[in-house]
Amino acid sequence: MENLDPNLTIAMLGEQQLLQFLQRFSPPDVVGDDGAILMPQPGHVLVVTTDMLVDGIHFCNRTTSPGDVGWRSAAANLSDLAAMGATPLGLTISLGLPASLPFVWLDQFYQGVADCLQTYGTAIVGGDVSRSPVLTVSMTALGEVLPHEQILRSTAQPGDAIVVTGPHGASRAGLEILLQPEWGQKFSPAERLALKQVHQRPRPRLDVLPILRQLTPHRAAGMDSSDGLADAILQICRASGVGAEIQESYLPLPASLQKVLPPHQAIEWTLYGGEDFELVLCLSPSAAQTLVEELNSTAMVVGHIMAGNEVSLRRLDGVKHPLSLQQGYQHFG
Amino acid sequence: MENLDPNLTIAMLGEQQLLQFLQRFSPPDVVGDDGAILMPQPGHVLVVTTDMLVDGIHFCNRTTSPGDVGWRSAAANLSDLAAMGATPLGLTISLGLPASLPFVWLDQFYQGVADCLQTYGTAIVGGDVSRSPVLTVSMTALGEVLPHEQILRSTAQPGDAIVVTGPHGASRAGLEILLQPEWGQKFSPAERLALKQVHQRPRPRLDVLPILRQLTPHRAAGMDSSDGLADAILQICRASGVGAEIQESYLPLPASLQKVLPPHQAIEWTLYGGEDFELVLCLSPSAAQTLVEELNSTAMVVGHIMAGNEVSLRRLDGVKHPLSLQQGYQHFG
Repeated sequence: MENLDPNLTIAMLGEQQLLQFLQRFSPPDVVGDDGAILMPQPGHVLVVTTDMLVDGIHFCNRTTSPGDVGWRSAAANLSDLAAMGATPLGLTISLGLPASLPFVWLDQFYQGVADCLQTYGTAIVGGDVSRSPVLTVSMTALGEVLPHEQILRSTAQPGDAIVVTGPHGASRAGLEILLQPEWGQKFSPAERLALKQVHQRPRPRLDVLPILRQLTPHRAAGMDSSDGLADAILQICRASGVGAEIQESYLPLPASLQKVLPPHQAIEWTLYGGEDFELVLCLSPSAAQTLVEELNSTAMVVGHIMAGNEVSLRRLDGVKHPLSLQQGYQHFG
Repeated sequence: MENLDPNLTIAMLGEQQLLQFLQRFSPPDVVGDDGAILMPQPGHVLVVTTDMLVDGIHFCNRTTSPGDVGWRSAAANLSDLAAMGATPLGLTISLGLPASLPFVWLDQFYQGVADCLQTYGTAIVGGDVSRSPVLTVSMTALGEVLPHEQILRSTAQPGDAIVVTGPHGASRAGLEILLQPEWGQKFSPAERLALKQVHQRPRPRLDVLPILRQLTPHRAAGMDSSDGLADAILQICRASGVGAEIQESYLPLPASLQKVLPPHQAIEWTLYGGEDFELVLCLSPSAAQTLVEELNSTAMVVGHIMAGNEVSLRRLDGVKHPLSLQQGYQHFG
């Protein structure tokens, strides 16, 4: 909204005005009752995914504007739908708001959510606001998929090629540039902007789904790489009861990272950086080849699914090491 | 779980063990991927409703055990589904957990949610856990309904009878007994228990839906009374562009309240107490009559929908007063 008084707080607004403001972001036909109404297409199953983000833990004002918090939260949920093969039907938002929160934060946050959802052809379909001492965002995304087009973690098969839909480590680098602007000077202005953009406005790979639907054979196992590329590969192998061999030489390192980081750190950020929101998909080698060609230069075959349960990384020197989660991010503890 | 160490905290458990614990409460076929999969019946539309509850604001240890917090939160969401005419498909839970929270709290909370959902034939179908300085619960319930069986707030018509499915004010009285046990001595032990039970383990009125589906004509407008009986009547009238006349003599006062409270206070708690989670339904007078008979003594016709926009309460002395929200509960400000 224009000309917002920066001193206007949530407490000054009151609940009724707040709810009226929030309803402006939703299609008029889905809200106003105890629940929102959505119409899945016949024959589709429903996919539901949910996320909670807490101020100071999942985002902070230093690296993330309110609009970016909104975009990122929505994008993370849409990425979970993409990871299941599902097309978005809508998203609900529940907010815990400190009474002292400037209303302008909320306005920009909602604008960020709405921008992201509009980009991917969906909308806010309901929510709740509550008082809370800590700014808290909880989102639930709903999507639909035909049963035979579902992507599960548990259906990878020995012999499958593992396709990664884009570079990894860029979000981690973008965060570092935001936290340490001086370190960021190592990159060109265009590279800096691109890496920050990946962190602040990640793009869920819903664009991959129509390509997958055209492939023969049709089967794809997989998930998204929100918790890191290594995590995704290990989770798929565990769920499918298989092993994998990944080639270090095929890891999808962003070019700008290879230029600036020592090799071991570029590899580490690529495997463990997280929040790149790409898809990690296991397909027959021929389907994988077609997918990589359709996605142009952004996608890579990084390795193959193997029988057994050993997940290994073949280094440039040809030696195999177990792929571990050791450097992965742990939320608790 | 049995023999839980009361000193075991969330931080000591770690995220993986926590997620494994939580998955035990969900059907194995719906979780384990980026999203849960649900199968709505053909021809049904989807109803989505969401709620956030914050420790110290929506619940507190003094009046609500962890199991009751779980039951109440789940029941509030199922009540929103009932208010739309929808049968539950499942519920997602996102939790913000302080690291110091005893694990036993979480165990009992989940048991409370599971007990409630099992009672109403549904289940937990996914969720998220996050660290947070404040214990925060966010739930999203999903349901399904045939389009012509939807209950909306906006379709009440002049001439409709307003049916309330049960007594109001009992939850408010139950809360007061918990806060002021001495005051509670005014009630018999059985009454005390019953009133506390209404507050701690409210029952969403999903049982009303099969009865509504048998009625002719079929149309029902309405909502639930979670924010109070007066609030529900006023919201339905506003959404439908109609007025209403409510008879004080027909207000559904719990018998135990009439015995103990001065008349004006019993009326106030009945109109404004909130959280009774009954349904307020507008139906043709003949359908209303059948519904009240089917629900036995718990339901009442409290008044009628009128043309115009005046919502009034006819007192026992025959004088009409505007029905106001003045004593209603406001979350903010």
